[in-house]
Amino acid sequence: MARNLKLTLAYDGTDFSGWQVQPDLETIQGTLASVIRRLTGENVLPQGSGRTDAGVHALAQVASFATESPIPVENFQKALNDLLPAAIRVLEVSEVAGDFHARKSARAKTYRYRIFRGPVCLPFLARYVWHFPYPLDENTMAQAAGAVVGEHDFTSFAAVDAEKGQDEGEGSNVRTIFSSSWVRQGDELTYSVRGDGFLHHMVRNLVGTFLVVGKGTLQVEDVRRILEARNRSAAGATAPASGLALVSVEY
Amino acid sequence: MARNLKLTLAYDGTDFSGWQVQPDLETIQGTLASVIRRLTGENVLPQGSGRTDAGVHALAQVASFATESPIPVENFQKALNDLLPAAIRVLEVSEVAGDFHARKSARAKTYRYRIFRGPVCLPFLARYVWHFPYPLDENTMAQAAGAVVGEHDFTSFAAVDAEKGQDEGEGSNVRTIFSSSWVRQGDELTYSVRGDGFLHHMVRNLVGTFLVVGKGTLQVEDVRRILEARNRSAAGATAPASGLALVSVEY
Repeated sequence: MARNLKLTLAYDGTDFSGWQVQPDLETIQGTLASVIRRLTGENVLPQGSGRTDAGVHALAQVASFATESPIPVENFQKALNDLLPAAIRVLEVSEVAGDFHARKSARAKTYRYRIFRGPVCLPFLARYVWHFPYPLDENTMAQAAGAVVGEHDFTSFAAVDAEKGQDEGEGSNVRTIFSSSWVRQGDELTYSVRGDGFLHHMVRNLVGTFLVVGKGTLQVEDVRRILEARNRSAAGATAPASGLALVSVEY
Repeated sequence: MARNLKLTLAYDGTDFSGWQVQPDLETIQGTLASVIRRLTGENVLPQGSGRTDAGVHALAQVASFATESPIPVENFQKALNDLLPAAIRVLEVSEVAGDFHARKSARAKTYRYRIFRGPVCLPFLARYVWHFPYPLDENTMAQAAGAVVGEHDFTSFAAVDAEKGQDEGEGSNVRTIFSSSWVRQGDELTYSVRGDGFLHHMVRNLVGTFLVVGKGTLQVEDVRRILEARNRSAAGATAPASGLALVSVEY
C-alpha cells in the first residue's frame, strides 16, 4: 500500500532555476524527483508547499509524495541526503495521512528577506543577502511593513505574468498577512512576513516597495494607496532573489 | 612614479580554480588582474602571499602590485569591488614601500580548517566545511596537533608533485609552526595553524593525518615518526579543499 511521506528541506537556491521542474534546467523539484527515482525506482514528482523562484533559498520547505517503496521511513533521510547535492538537504522525513498535501494543507508560511547594510559584503554572505549600503529611513520602513498586515487584495504586489500565485491559490489575489516587520541586527536589516499564502514575487515586491519608502520617495500612506490600487505598476521594483528565504510552513 | 599597493582580500574559493592565473580557467589572481586592467588600463599580475588551491577560501589574503594609475588609494577599494564578482571582496587597500612584496615580505600565516560533525550539514555551511559526522577521538587529535609545533622538515606533509611550496620557499621543506590546535564549538571542530610558511597541501595533509589519529588507526607518536620519515606516503590522505581558509598574513 502506498504511504504518503512529508519531507522538510533546506536548500541554497543560488545555483538552481527555482523549485519547479523544467526541461533541461536544474531545479530543486527536478533534482529531488531524480534522487527519489534512483532510490525507489518510482517516477514521482514531489509536491512542494509552493514554488520558490531561481536564486531563492529555503530553511524548511515542505514537500510530499506517495511511495510504494518498502524502505523504512527512518532510513529515507540519510538515503536521500547521500544522493542529493550538498546544496539540498533533507532535514526530516515523516509518514503523514493520505490526504496530506504539502501545498493544499498549508495554513501559513513565513518568509525572510535579508539586506546587508555594511559597506563591504563578505563573499560568504553574498549569496544570502541583498547588499544595499545606501541610506534608508529604517523607522519609516518598519511602519510601512505594518501597513500590509491583515486581509488584502495583493494584486499590486503580484508579478505581472499569467502565472497564478506562488501558492497557486484559487485565482483570488486576496491573502491574509499575520505579521510583517523589519529587524535590524548589526549590519543586517531583515524583513519577516508570515501569512496564509503569497502571490508570485509578492515578498520581493513588498521589500522593493518598502525600500522606496526607506529612500523617502514614497510615504507610509502611499503603501496603503498602492494596495488599494490593485495595480502592479503602482509598487516598487522586485528585490533581488538572493535575499529571500522560505523559513517555515505551518500545517 | 609607480606606487606599490597592498590589497587585503576575502574570497569564496568554491567556484574558482585556485589563486594562480591559468589559461582558460577562472582564478582569483586572473580575475583580479583583469579587473585592475579595466580600472587602470595596466597589465599587472598582482602577487599573492601564496597560492590557495581550487576550492580553498580566504578571509584575508594579501596581494601587492605596482601601478602608475593616478587613482587615489582611498578610491581603489570601492572601484575594484564595483567590478569584481561578489565572491571576491577587497577589504583594504594601502600604499606600501616599494620593496614590499606580498609573498617575500610575509613573516607568518594562519590557516583554519573547519570540520562539521553534526549528522546533517546545512547547505549554507556546506561550501565552507568538511562534513565528517563519523566518530573521532578529539582529545587525541588535539595532542597530535601539538606534535607538529616547532621547526621541522615537512616533506611528509607536502604534495607529491614537482611544485615548490605554497609559499614558494627556497626549495627547503623546513618550516616553523608557531601554534597548531583544534577547538570544538557546537557541531564544529576547527583546526588553526600559524607558521612562517606552508608547503603545497601541507595544512590539508596535516588535517588528513590528524583524522587518522582521531579514528585510532594512528597514535600521536606516529605523527612524530611520520614527520621524521620525510616521506609523503607515510601521512594520511589530503583533506577536502572546502574546509580550508587562509585567515591572515603577518608582515
